[in-house]
Amino acid sequence: MTDLLDHLRAAVGDTHVLTSPDDVAAYVVDWTGVHAGRALAVVRPGSTEEVAAVVAACHEAEVAIVPQGGNTGLVGGGVPDASGSQVVLSLGRMRTVRSVDAVTGTITVDAGVVLADLHVAAEEAGRLFPMSLGSEGSCTIGGNLATNAGGTAVLRYGMTRELVLGLEVVLPDGRVWDGLRGLRKDNTGYDLTQLFVGSEGTLGVITGAVLRLFPATPRHATAWVAVPSVDAAVALLGVARDRAGVHLSTFEIANRQALDLVLTHLPGASDPIGEPSDWYVLVELAGAATEDGLDGALEATLGDTVDAGHVLDAAIASTPAQRSALWALREGISEAQKVEGATLKHDVTLPIADLARWTSEIEPVLDTILPGVRPVTYGHVGDGNLHYNLSAPVGRDAELLAAAPDLSRAIYDSVAAANGSISAEHGLGRTKAAAGASYKSAVEVDLMRAVKKALDPDGLMNPGVLLP
Amino acid sequence: MTDLLDHLRAAVGDTHVLTSPDDVAAYVVDWTGVHAGRALAVVRPGSTEEVAAVVAACHEAEVAIVPQGGNTGLVGGGVPDASGSQVVLSLGRMRTVRSVDAVTGTITVDAGVVLADLHVAAEEAGRLFPMSLGSEGSCTIGGNLATNAGGTAVLRYGMTRELVLGLEVVLPDGRVWDGLRGLRKDNTGYDLTQLFVGSEGTLGVITGAVLRLFPATPRHATAWVAVPSVDAAVALLGVARDRAGVHLSTFEIANRQALDLVLTHLPGASDPIGEPSDWYVLVELAGAATEDGLDGALEATLGDTVDAGHVLDAAIASTPAQRSALWALREGISEAQKVEGATLKHDVTLPIADLARWTSEIEPVLDTILPGVRPVTYGHVGDGNLHYNLSAPVGRDAELLAAAPDLSRAIYDSVAAANGSISAEHGLGRTKAAAGASYKSAVEVDLMRAVKKALDPDGLMNPGVLLP
Repeated sequence: MTDLLDHLRAAVGDTHVLTSPDDVAAYVVDWTGVHAGRALAVVRPGSTEEVAAVVAACHEAEVAIVPQGGNTGLVGGGVPDASGSQVVLSLGRMRTVRSVDAVTGTITVDAGVVLADLHVAAEEAGRLFPMSLGSEGSCTIGGNLATNAGGTAVLRYGMTRELVLGLEVVLPDGRVWDGLRGLRKDNTGYDLTQLFVGSEGTLGVITGAVLRLFPATPRHATAWVAVPSVDAAVALLGVARDRAGVHLSTFEIANRQALDLVLTHLPGASDPIGEPSDWYVLVELAGAATEDGLDGALEATLGDTVDAGHVLDAAIASTPAQRSALWALREGISEAQKVEGATLKHDVTLPIADLARWTSEIEPVLDTILPGVRPVTYGHVGDGNLHYNLSAPVGRDAELLAAAPDLSRAIYDSVAAANGSISAEHGLGRTKAAAGASYKSAVEVDLMRAVKKALDPDGLMNPGVLLP
Repeated sequence: MTDLLDHLRAAVGDTHVLTSPDDVAAYVVDWTGVHAGRALAVVRPGSTEEVAAVVAACHEAEVAIVPQGGNTGLVGGGVPDASGSQVVLSLGRMRTVRSVDAVTGTITVDAGVVLADLHVAAEEAGRLFPMSLGSEGSCTIGGNLATNAGGTAVLRYGMTRELVLGLEVVLPDGRVWDGLRGLRKDNTGYDLTQLFVGSEGTLGVITGAVLRLFPATPRHATAWVAVPSVDAAVALLGVARDRAGVHLSTFEIANRQALDLVLTHLPGASDPIGEPSDWYVLVELAGAATEDGLDGALEATLGDTVDAGHVLDAAIASTPAQRSALWALREGISEAQKVEGATLKHDVTLPIADLARWTSEIEPVLDTILPGVRPVTYGHVGDGNLHYNLSAPVGRDAELLAAAPDLSRAIYDSVAAANGSISAEHGLGRTKAAAGASYKSAVEVDLMRAVKKALDPDGLMNPGVLLP
């Protein structure tokens, strides 16, 4: 492997090939801590040409590559396995916004641009790049594209794949595919862009992208709403759609357990509603500077649903600081649960009409497997997507970890039976590759393997991720 | 081939295997009349199982299949070649709306459902399926999906690929892939659905789909606007976006030549604006029943742009009949041009910022190739998509046909130089398969061939279409 390391150093410069344990430490363990691998080296190219040279050298040496963005993934898709034979290819140095076309509404960026920096670049052009995630301060757009990231703006703007027009990709043999076309309409063959989006680094390395920009929405109307049940939340969603139409941009749910953890662990957090409730919804409308009916539409929505018994109480933000405080309750859940102790994460989608039935039916099943287990339920209910995360009974983390396979299987079986998805937005990574395949038909797994083999015949791109 | 015909008859019944010249006539010639092929047989299965049996029988006999929906395509992608050795597989009998889920906002349909019937089914559920095409009375959703159809609602709702959540596909060997999941979020592997959308029947036969439904938009504000130039139209688009935001649903352009043909050939058509203009725009805002600011937003848009000199005059529809009359001017262009005589069609996308420059630069080039050639220019300017169709100098159709290769090459070369697309929404079919490949990089053509070979290793699905 000395030869390969020499080639890599020649390609990107000595200082950007990391091999000492201290230097590589941050690149080989994922955010959850579950996946801690080893790497032959971490390589940090500074341009598409350098990425191509790195991939070509690895291809020549038959060494596997693990592409990595901000390393904020939750399923181990961006960290190496334990073999110590894989090269981590970090896109973190490729942080240039290449161009902005405000007329057409496009922005062309390097894969390593941090999502929050992309927001700023869009804003400076008077436009909006809507994708919003808890990790937006450190995740990169290349990672968002590779995993087809979701977040809190999917309800209105769609998943990452709906926000991209073209890609630049280094293929497994080191050739560069320049698909950086910023066209809404281009019907000239198979949609290769969509094939790479969500492929989790298993088909090539995304190095650049053309993304869609949208009209800015500086006006907001935001409320934290106490609802008696998931059914009531779904009813509120229907009314909000009718009353607020296209302005409805956020519709997030959280159970009381989730709020309790935030109130316990997030400094400065306070409950905006006096009386405790089993469920809460964060609802937000967003509009252009010229649109001034948002507050009225929100109030009408809440008025309709209070009368129907679907809403118990609501806190409406009347200042930007109040809006931030309501958002902090939602965005603090993941971190608060991590502080609380061991967490068993699930990221499932269900048909919206089945959400209430599913959540009420799964709880007793899980309580049978591990009495006292605490479902910390939250997520993007407008998309049917729940982060159905389990915390251990207080002080009994080891029992949660022991029961994890049984708990997850019970959840996934019931989701599959309801025609849901076992990974709504986090992807499959290493954690769920086997489970993902087990809930698919043989025909579908065959199709996925055929695609993988066609684009990566030597199996060197992120092996073990997405497909078992 | 007698054996194959026997198998096909056994699969779908004798009456649904057509072989006589009279019976097959309507299935072997496309709408343009340019592509007139021959077929071994036309087979009309009535279910997914029958489609699978037909495809398996053809696979066994090594006979090529041409899937066909409403046969309204414009690039010869749905009709057989001249060999007489191909089987046309018509989905026309599969017209069942399988289910509607108004809460989640999905509809599940057979591939042969006519687009207009799909509109009705969505309306009956109080929802909108937004795709709108001139051929919607006869095109099928399966064909729309296979070609990733566009139309007049793309500006707001996107291409067909943005409207689909899941597919059911019969693979080239006759196996059925059931990907009929109605989930907005499902990150469990490669997006096979998007791979089949726009693949023009070259990877399999789409037999069913889950599509997205949207809130109904019964309110409209519609205007036919005279503008002095393409530049002015683009400026008007910018103002309309700012003033009308998400309500802007249509922004179509037409030149005077296009309007003249409609006024000449469409019975009852009249010019809603007295003074002739070089260019026109059809602009429409659409909203929910509760949204009553549309007229005001349209008037504000026109007021701003009249003052800036971007708008010369406008006719605003004040009744549904007036609205229909304005739409008829736009939707009548294609038919009127057909009545006028020979047409050389182009369906190109350009970056919106380049539209004005491109249209002014290409005209003199074409006039040098064929003096007096008449560009009939219209299309979806909000998407950068022009149907840049040429009519012959009056009475000289033969000269247009003789000059066609040179004219098309000049147009495609200039579109490619501007980073545009030579097929915005019609696809490549047989007409543009070679041209499509010639404007792509070798890497991209290799990728497309790798995908084709992976899914259709025997090359039996619509050979000669999409890839040369």
